Parts: sequence; structure tokens; C-alpha cells
Amino acid sequence: MDNFRFYANTDIRFGKNQEECLPELLKAYGNRVLLTYGGGSIKKTGLYEKIKCLLKDFDVYELGGIAPNPRIESVYAGAKICKEKNIDVILAVGGGSTIDCSKVIAAAAFYDGNAWDLVLNPDKITKALPLVTVLTLAATGSEMNRGAVISNSATKEKIGLGNEHLLPRASILNPENTFTVPANQTAAGSADILSHLWEIYFAPQEAFIPDVINEGLQRAVIRYAPAAIAKPDDYEARAQLMWASSLALNDLCTTGKGCAWSCHPIEHELSAYYDITHGVGLAIITPRWMRYVLREETVGKFAAYARNVWGIPDTDDWSAAHAGIEKTEEFLTGLGIPMTLGALGISAEFFPQMAAHAVKFGWLQYAYIPLNENDVVEILKSCL
Amino acid sequence: MDNFRFYANTDIRFGKNQEECLPELLKAYGNRVLLTYGGGSIKKTGLYEKIKCLLKDFDVYELGGIAPNPRIESVYAGAKICKEKNIDVILAVGGGSTIDCSKVIAAAAFYDGNAWDLVLNPDKITKALPLVTVLTLAATGSEMNRGAVISNSATKEKIGLGNEHLLPRASILNPENTFTVPANQTAAGSADILSHLWEIYFAPQEAFIPDVINEGLQRAVIRYAPAAIAKPDDYEARAQLMWASSLALNDLCTTGKGCAWSCHPIEHELSAYYDITHGVGLAIITPRWMRYVLREETVGKFAAYARNVWGIPDTDDWSAAHAGIEKTEEFLTGLGIPMTLGALGISAEFFPQMAAHAVKFGWLQYAYIPLNENDVVEILKSCL
Repeated sequence: MDNFRFYANTDIRFGKNQEECLPELLKAYGNRVLLTYGGGSIKKTGLYEKIKCLLKDFDVYELGGIAPNPRIESVYAGAKICKEKNIDVILAVGGGSTIDCSKVIAAAAFYDGNAWDLVLNPDKITKALPLVTVLTLAATGSEMNRGAVISNSATKEKIGLGNEHLLPRASILNPENTFTVPANQTAAGSADILSHLWEIYFAPQEAFIPDVINEGLQRAVIRYAPAAIAKPDDYEARAQLMWASSLALNDLCTTGKGCAWSCHPIEHELSAYYDITHGVGLAIITPRWMRYVLREETVGKFAAYARNVWGIPDTDDWSAAHAGIEKTEEFLTGLGIPMTLGALGISAEFFPQMAAHAVKFGWLQYAYIPLNENDVVEILKSCL
Repeated sequence: MDNFRFYANTDIRFGKNQEECLPELLKAYGNRVLLTYGGGSIKKTGLYEKIKCLLKDFDVYELGGIAPNPRIESVYAGAKICKEKNIDVILAVGGGSTIDCSKVIAAAAFYDGNAWDLVLNPDKITKALPLVTVLTLAATGSEMNRGAVISNSATKEKIGLGNEHLLPRASILNPENTFTVPANQTAAGSADILSHLWEIYFAPQEAFIPDVINEGLQRAVIRYAPAAIAKPDDYEARAQLMWASSLALNDLCTTGKGCAWSCHPIEHELSAYYDITHGVGLAIITPRWMRYVLREETVGKFAAYARNVWGIPDTDDWSAAHAGIEKTEEFLTGLGIPMTLGALGISAEFFPQMAAHAVKFGWLQYAYIPLNENDVVEILKSCL
């Protein structure tokens, strides 16, 4: 077990009606709130009204319209409001995109330069406004971690960053707020959760406890994602997916072993070039990546994965590993995810540029099996 | 999944040489430190000298001699020092007894009445000194939770309490600091960790994620406790036990399901009357308790336990449940724990009084299967 620090101190309020904690949680930081949200689904569901009503005694300013694969332009807009209105605390209501964007707004509120600097060089973040979140999509885990991903359409870049000041102070996790998430987004979110777990599970360093927790969380998603798709208001299924989302990427599963991001850097290129749904890109890439890196040195781990996650009977390692990868692809297909890049209208046109950028900015030399530009092109081609 | 709050925000520094973080961690709270410890084993191992050296720029006051099953008298003594010397932060170096005692000292430092009031009525705790710990025994989980257990030999009481102000601000978990723990204490500590997991696992409410995490942590202890006993300086084994200790009782495993303390209240009576090692008492009681509450309504859960923790083949529920309980008893016996009360010189003399007190103060009406005085006497008799 490697040395580690574990400090996942977001105050989680999980369950029905937990929005009612918001006034108490926010007033610890002040009275001037920036409410951030996405495309307006929270207005359709009534959550917006509910929150406005709960915050009737606060001065609430708003930034709506934060897009999936959130743009640096939204960060600029949010930071401007924070500075002009002297905001005390940000309340992000939405999924990972809204929360990620709000994290960088919180940091940019104290930065005088161009906020894109903070994305490229997060060490420049020395302070951030407190952030409270109300999660509406089980996927990215942003509600309980220090990371964010921001896109820049001008430069065709989608960059992940992390900084201790970005951790939400509190997150409201009410599974009922995900009842209205459509099947395709539930599927993509579940694929995103699984992908986080896989990026951590398939890392060079082994550690028993984080890996058994990881396997358990994978089984939770595999069990409950189809249930949530079949019955969108299945509270138990939505609850398990929501809690799995947070625990998958709050550092619990990396304790003592770290992680090795292999598929995310490749997917970020797809999203940057084609603005596709992150979880869909991950679902397409992952089984192909698994086959690409399956070899003598990795077969034991893939066999353990097959046995402990998918319950593959105790056959030889190679057969088990192949069966586990098949199960992975079958499962993702069964969620209704389009499982080829072709189905999304993506051709091989930009693969070389994407591969070059992924290797340069995605730290792929530290992936589970280090990947060079040629490897990335080959993996992408197998996704066509 | 029930509603829950999760806020396990102890700053964990895990691994080799992490004591070196102490000056930075402590100076956030001030310069006047109360160093607490137990019977002096930290002087033999060199840890005391190491810490004194690291704290050379602090004003360090000391309270040593905190006993296993820590007494209220040590709380009085520690609180007196805190008040007289205007202590800023408490540094507890030891196992659960030293940490538990230090938690109540931290609260008693701000209380003018008799500190035993705080044990009996923890709602009276409204403030506590910050507490930092250096763990030297993997067992109680006190290093990452809000609980403590204090004994009063005058009244023959051993009482558990919990309060949010008692959570350690930071804990140093260096597995090397447990290399010198003797085999019998390693065994008792491992039984204590398992018992915490069982008290949570066997609760009326079901929840998938906390239970799969729980099963994984049980498997970690079952795998690594014998390794640590066989080879006391097996770093990996000590590391897994240490992290299991913290995660078993930091609320992670109760998220969405709560817990149902069945064996701990009974054991507290044994410790209160006979000052036996807590983990030994738990190991003796637990398999007998399992058999006592095995019935139609619990057989499914015991069968799941047998299959998912012990790998019992998929036979019928009753056979699996019995096999799982057998495995439990065999495992604890294999750790070298004396598995009868008779072996500890304990007779049935005080069973009625113990049972009455356990039911009255141990909330046994909320146990997995509610237990009355007669039930407790029967369970204790089966331990003779």
C-alpha cells in the first residue's frame, strides 16, 4: 500500500427532502448566493422553484445555461458576477458539468488574469469561494471531489484539473432529483461511473481494500443501472447509482494505490472535437482499450476483474479475462448506448491530431499500460 | 436506502514517516499541546522520542498511563491539565483507549461540572479542543469517528458515547507503528474490527453499497490478520488492518442503513466487571450470538454473509448460514483467542446484573434481533 492522504470532507446530505438543509448550509458562508445551473431542466422539474423558495431570505444571483462539456465562456460569465456582486457562496444545481464549471468560477472569482490560465495551470488556484451543490445526475463524482473538466471550443481543448480548494463544502444528494433523467443520460452517467472505477482499478499498483471496495461499487452500478433505466422512479436504484457516483471518485478507491487514467484522456479528445456525451465516448472506447492492453502482464488483473465483478466461473486467466471484457461490452450495449464512433458520425479524420493531443496533455505515459500516439490511433480505429 | 449524513472529515495521513506532518498539523491550532499516551509502550518503541523531537518548538504537556478500558479518572486528570495550562490541541498517541480518553478530555476541558456527566449525557458536549492522533493499534476505529467508550470502576460501568465535536481533526496512520503489537493484541484488535463490521452488517435495514464495502473489509481482515500475527513486521498486512480499522467505523458502512449494536453492549458488561480485553470478549460472544439469533427471518442474511465473506459454496440458506458461523468461530480460534469465558476465569455469578445493565444502557431493544435480559443471560451462558 502506497502512502496517501484521505480528506474527503464534503458534508454529504443524502436522501429525500435534503434540499431543506440548504438555508442552514449556505448561511454559514453569507447571504449573497450565485445559483448556477444548466439548460433549464431544473425549471421543468420544479427543483428551481423549490430552491428559490427555500432561499427567499438570501440575495440570489443566477447563471443558467451551463452546457454539457462546460465552456470557459461560462466560467468568465460566472466569475464576473462573483466579482461584481460580491458573492459569498456558489450553489450549483445540476450534474457534473454545472458543478465542474462552478468550481472553476469559484476559483476565478479570486483571479485577475484569464481564467483559462487556471485550467492549464491549477497551481495558480490559491483560494476559491465556498461551493455547495445539489446533484441532479449520477455520473461524474464532481459533487465530492477536487476535480473539474473545462472545454475551450476555440482551441478544441477539453482539460481536466484538480485543486484542493475546489472541493464542494456540502452536497445535497437526493435520488428523487434524478427520476427525470432520461434513459440515454442514465446510461451514459452509469458508464461514466464505471469508467472512473476502471481507471482506478486498472492501475499498476495493487491494494486489497480499495480494490474490493471498487469491485463492490462496480457491482452496484451493474445491478442498478438497468433497474433505473427500466423504471426511472425506482428510488433504490437511483440512490445506489448516486452514492456509487460519489464514492467512485472521492479518493476512497485510490487510497494506497493511486490511479492510471487510460480512457478518459482519449475520450476528452472526442468530446473536444465532436461535443459528444462523455459517458458515451467512454463506453465506446473502454472495451476496445481493454482488448488492446490485454497481455501476459495484465491478464491476471483482467481475470480477477472478470471473476470478482462479473462472477465468471474460475476458469483459466485468459478465458476469464476475455469473458470479462465480453461481459463489459454486452452490458454497455444493453444499456442502449450506441457502441461505435460510426454511429455518432465520427470518422478517422482527426485521429492523428487527437492522439497527439491526448498523449501530450493526458499523461498517457502513466496509463495502466503506457500509450503512445500510435496506440491511441489504433484504439480509436477499433472503435469505428 | 435510508437518508443519511456522511461527514468523515478527519484528515488522514497514511503511511511511512507520516509523523513528520505533525508540526504542520498541530500548529494550525496553537503551540500548547497535551500529549496523551498509554502504558508506556511508545517509550520502548522509540515513537515517544521521535514525536518529542518533532515537537521541539511546541510547549508540550503530558498525560501518560491511560489504561485499556480507559477510566474517567484519566479524563479528570487530562481536563485539569487542559484548563490549568491553557492547552490549544491534544495529541493522542496510542490505540483506541488513549484516543477515546483524549476525546472526552477534549470535551471536558470546556465543562465545569463532573466529566462523567458528559459520558452519560453527551448532548452536554457543545465544544471540544481539537484532537490529532497517532494510531498504534488497528482496532477501534476511534481515529476516524465521533465515538468513545469510558469506564467507571466505582460504578462498574463502561459507557459508549458519541458527539460531533469528538471527531479527530487529523490522524497519522503509519502501519510501522503497529509492528510491535504482540500477537494476542493483534488478534483482539482484528476481532474488534470484525465485530464493528458485523454490528453494522447485521442490521434490520439492507443497503447494497455499504454492505458490499463491509463484506470487502471483512475479507481484508480475514486475509491479513493471520499474516500480521505470523510476521509482525509485514507492512502490507499491518497497512490493510489499519485502514480496515478506520473504514469499519467511520460511518461509511452505515450509510443508508444505520447499525444495530448487538454484541458490543454485552461485551461492555464483561469488560466493566472483569476488565478483560474488549476484542477478546467480542470474539467469545459473537459466534454464540450468531447461533442464538439464527432463525427463519435472519437465515437469508447469514447465508449471504457465509457466501460473500467466507466463500461458502452456493448450498441452501440454512446449511450456508451454519457453515458461515462455523467459519467465524474457527477463524477467531485460529487467531489464538481464548474462546470461552471459563478460560478467562469468568463464571455466571454476575450474569443477571450484567444482562439487566446491558439491556437498560445498551439499547438492546434496537439490536438486530431485539434482546431482553433472559436472552443476554442465555448468550452469556453459552460462552462459558
